[in-house]
Amino acid sequence: MTDSELISRLQEQAIIARSAILTMTTLAGSGHPGGSMSSIDLLLTLYQFIHHNPQNPDLPDRDRVVVSNGHISPAVYTALALNGYHNLDEVISQFRLSGSIYEGHIERDVKGVEWSTGNLGQGLSAGAGFALASRINNIPYNVYVLMGDGEQQKGQISEARRFAIKYQLNNLTAIVDYNELQISGNIHSVMPQNIKANWESDGWKVIEIDGHNYQEILSTLQMTRDKDYPLMILAHTVMGKGVPFMENQAKYHGAALNEAQLEEALHYLGQSNRLEDYKMMRAEFKPVKQKPTKDKYALQCNLKSGNPMLYEKPTDNRSAWGNAIADLAEINKNNSTPIVVTDCDLQSSVKTAAFEKVTPDRFFQGGIMEHNTAVLSGALSTCGIQTFWSDFGVFGLDEVYNQQRLNDINHTNLKVVLTHTGLDVGEDGKTHQCIDYIGIVRNWYGFHLIIPADPNQTDRLIRWLIDKPGNYVVTMGRSAVLIILKDDGTPFYDLNYAFDYGKCDILRKGDKATVMVTGTPIGNALKAVDTLKEEGINLQLIYVSCPLAINRDTLIQAVNTGLIFSIEDHNIHSGLGSIIADRLAEENLSARLIKIGVKNYGSSGTSNDLYKAVGLDAESIKERIKQELINKD
Amino acid sequence: MTDSELISRLQEQAIIARSAILTMTTLAGSGHPGGSMSSIDLLLTLYQFIHHNPQNPDLPDRDRVVVSNGHISPAVYTALALNGYHNLDEVISQFRLSGSIYEGHIERDVKGVEWSTGNLGQGLSAGAGFALASRINNIPYNVYVLMGDGEQQKGQISEARRFAIKYQLNNLTAIVDYNELQISGNIHSVMPQNIKANWESDGWKVIEIDGHNYQEILSTLQMTRDKDYPLMILAHTVMGKGVPFMENQAKYHGAALNEAQLEEALHYLGQSNRLEDYKMMRAEFKPVKQKPTKDKYALQCNLKSGNPMLYEKPTDNRSAWGNAIADLAEINKNNSTPIVVTDCDLQSSVKTAAFEKVTPDRFFQGGIMEHNTAVLSGALSTCGIQTFWSDFGVFGLDEVYNQQRLNDINHTNLKVVLTHTGLDVGEDGKTHQCIDYIGIVRNWYGFHLIIPADPNQTDRLIRWLIDKPGNYVVTMGRSAVLIILKDDGTPFYDLNYAFDYGKCDILRKGDKATVMVTGTPIGNALKAVDTLKEEGINLQLIYVSCPLAINRDTLIQAVNTGLIFSIEDHNIHSGLGSIIADRLAEENLSARLIKIGVKNYGSSGTSNDLYKAVGLDAESIKERIKQELINKD
Repeated sequence: MTDSELISRLQEQAIIARSAILTMTTLAGSGHPGGSMSSIDLLLTLYQFIHHNPQNPDLPDRDRVVVSNGHISPAVYTALALNGYHNLDEVISQFRLSGSIYEGHIERDVKGVEWSTGNLGQGLSAGAGFALASRINNIPYNVYVLMGDGEQQKGQISEARRFAIKYQLNNLTAIVDYNELQISGNIHSVMPQNIKANWESDGWKVIEIDGHNYQEILSTLQMTRDKDYPLMILAHTVMGKGVPFMENQAKYHGAALNEAQLEEALHYLGQSNRLEDYKMMRAEFKPVKQKPTKDKYALQCNLKSGNPMLYEKPTDNRSAWGNAIADLAEINKNNSTPIVVTDCDLQSSVKTAAFEKVTPDRFFQGGIMEHNTAVLSGALSTCGIQTFWSDFGVFGLDEVYNQQRLNDINHTNLKVVLTHTGLDVGEDGKTHQCIDYIGIVRNWYGFHLIIPADPNQTDRLIRWLIDKPGNYVVTMGRSAVLIILKDDGTPFYDLNYAFDYGKCDILRKGDKATVMVTGTPIGNALKAVDTLKEEGINLQLIYVSCPLAINRDTLIQAVNTGLIFSIEDHNIHSGLGSIIADRLAEENLSARLIKIGVKNYGSSGTSNDLYKAVGLDAESIKERIKQELINKD
Repeated sequence: MTDSELISRLQEQAIIARSAILTMTTLAGSGHPGGSMSSIDLLLTLYQFIHHNPQNPDLPDRDRVVVSNGHISPAVYTALALNGYHNLDEVISQFRLSGSIYEGHIERDVKGVEWSTGNLGQGLSAGAGFALASRINNIPYNVYVLMGDGEQQKGQISEARRFAIKYQLNNLTAIVDYNELQISGNIHSVMPQNIKANWESDGWKVIEIDGHNYQEILSTLQMTRDKDYPLMILAHTVMGKGVPFMENQAKYHGAALNEAQLEEALHYLGQSNRLEDYKMMRAEFKPVKQKPTKDKYALQCNLKSGNPMLYEKPTDNRSAWGNAIADLAEINKNNSTPIVVTDCDLQSSVKTAAFEKVTPDRFFQGGIMEHNTAVLSGALSTCGIQTFWSDFGVFGLDEVYNQQRLNDINHTNLKVVLTHTGLDVGEDGKTHQCIDYIGIVRNWYGFHLIIPADPNQTDRLIRWLIDKPGNYVVTMGRSAVLIILKDDGTPFYDLNYAFDYGKCDILRKGDKATVMVTGTPIGNALKAVDTLKEEGINLQLIYVSCPLAINRDTLIQAVNTGLIFSIEDHNIHSGLGSIIADRLAEENLSARLIKIGVKNYGSSGTSNDLYKAVGLDAESIKERIKQELINKD
């Protein structure tokens, strides 16, 4: 096709697209027509230009389009429909309809959408992840990230820019839809910003173009092939472009036309008004269970888990994690599935130096930029890469709560390995104590949570995890911990032990009561239970490594003793104890439950001092249990 | 004092300070000496220069010093001690000791510390808040924010820069300790960044100085008085400055000297080694309950609550909030306590336009920069300003989880009013559905949570809240909701109703079972209960507006019916239902509990459609209750 033929086609598509955008938003009675109209010419041109195949949307070397401002879903769905991915009538009639895939903000469930967005500022990080995955997987393609101009205010974008420059992600191109309006009005009055200067200050090249001039867009896109720098295209556009009464009106950012206005707009566009047809289709729509299942997104791999390593002396779980991942990297060096570790300036603390030594090109230092690293790691994990992000608890969960939530919504395959959780963080004090990790992860439907008891269980679970799809958080403290032993003095998590997600471990048998523990306090709880045994009080001790998946059988075993203690160095309101209470209710089981946990933000001190201060040392646990047993009798 | 006398004093102080820094970190066996040594000259000079009074640390017009990189606590504590705030021997001997106030990262509990930090990138936002408070309170002072260079990687800093430029916070000065090292090594290799260009691209003036040259620091600080621009001082420093073997060594970022190294360092500094004395003091330290109580930080005010407004027609709670806060602004216009509202480009959705109209100088548009707005609003609320931040649920909680956690640790007085919580967010889809708000807030010890049932309760609780200290989250959906009526058809939350935090409301009496509801589903639950009553099934219906504070009496009333249903448009694992289970366990009460809630991320659709899809419409609720009653009998 010649350029002029192409431009004729784009002009025709654009008229149809603008009609579709306006019709679907009016039909739904909501949505974001303004930005959809300003960006549609960019999107349509992009899909004419990039390497892709609607018949094979998972083509490995396809160019990726990430739309960061997910509210312009009408434009995205329309562009995809006009390029063979969807039926345009279905898009229009089902837009924002419960049970349909055409949600208000774009979702990966829609064929052709690479990344679910909606909360602003995250798209460039995802795009950087895809761009990096191209290099890791040795599959050349280009990545285009379309962004809004209002969202340039989000700080995370600057983090993504820096990462892209550091790693020379030259296959990455950002396109900013510069219509100069956001919900509250002109971007220069809502929040004055020199967008071009911001990007240039981080080392990006910036080209300004007319975002409605197909020839100019096309020739700029030509430059994006085989360039040796990340590029930002600042595309000057007009909100509401194409319908005079909508142009440059901020109110159309997030408001649909009424039916009379739609009639007027379609008349101007020279298109017939089919609203009534679409109303009928909408009324007739039956939600079908046609959504892609989770399996579609699951990492497929056959990574080897290697040989377990037995720890016999007190060791920190961090080192066991570091040793295991280094070994796994070594034995899977030639596996077709790359293993990647990302870091945020804490490599020495989270013990991933050995991994980097084994496979230096698979280790990525993301700097003190947790928001970018969370999203980037999530995106990597969707590209056939087994991705581990290792950080401190408060940085990998608390600081990036929403980024991880969006990863979960994106069906990523991310493994988040967090040290310094609970009170056991050294003397860093309350800002660094992640005592809400269970409370956080239980808010997300897709994430699993594993809390190993000792270095042997850490080793085994990391090896188990190496070929698993889906999202997992693994948490551990900082200190060296005792090896958990059986009654006979041999390691409980020995070489015959196999990790099984959700299975609780009965470390000691007893019938007087049940003690259920998670996290670093297991050492003190075990001491307390063994001491009480010497005093003739036999307690059942259960280690809970997967508090989000406690099964009914374990609960019954605990309930049978009539009294349950939960022990954790976690906020007492939202951790293990509250989950046990919740699960007992769900299973219609009943037993007295005594929760032992953390009742306020901690202080700064050694772990031993802190545990003592909050009643989690062995002596306090023992005394508390004895007291409650007296109360019970 | 002449400049040369001052410089002599600083030179003397600096020797003592460096000895103190090294001694306390060696004594504690941990801490961050490197950055403490590079920044100590800046800090000491600053405290000689600023307007402050150690005898009156709360002096209203004192200049504020915010230290964003809270890990340089040894330098901060030492500078404060040398300036009359603390006993230096106590600082050294108690550093990082459990029960002491001298934590690993600086805390407001330490006299002279304005803001607790530790998680990087938040200090400039707090400083911007203090600078803005100066204008709002009409008390002139300057704000100095000391920052690390590694933390410049954090995106939130760019947000704070833009806010400061927009609002011309000319009393704000940032000082960057540019030692060019972070934990993992040289900042230019960990994450290449042009810090100066970044700040200039956001419109800041930047001056480069030698951060160890007292004369240069002093003369630059002179420029910060009465300037008409925000200024960043890029202070070139040397990590470990003052002890040759420590200089420019990244390993001393977060590692203390051993005792032999300390001896060598003190010898070089010409100071005697008193480590053994300090060991004795440390051993003798007894934690005393000397920490300031929460009351110290509580907002003191006598704002008027005005006259309640009665809603008799379906209205969205958002409008009731907007109307109430506008009325409160009007009647308290001349009160000595300012009422402030902050926004993130959602004013039209969160209904604060009327407030801005009444008091335009008390409304601050923070743009799409939630991280900055969360911290800035928290800081404002510590300055005698009753501060409301209004946003969507996912932006005011999920996106800023860690910022709110740090606000809580900072004992702020923030009121976070969030619309678009639960499934009732319009058709925006899962990224915008805040169905984890209870699960989030229960992780924080200081925050209260209020979920009004209808516009009348919204009006009353906002009026109740207007003079309250402490942190509160108020959440509501988007839609117009029915007015909750008594059996006699008059409004339940009538003009005689007074909001009382923690009190549950019995909307219907009955003995067959108890239905406990929170949030927007109350409308459907009420319909279900009233319909069942017509069928001869009498249920007790309890509205839970404060799920984090359900009292024992209410639980007993519920338990007495033998069967409890919890109903919420919240993640079923972490919301009201799980709290009821938890509270029953805590109170040693027992009853069958059936939880009705949201079991996966939602879809995009009208609230009615979504409620139907997840079984939260009136019909589904009714049928579910009937089924369980049959099972029970």
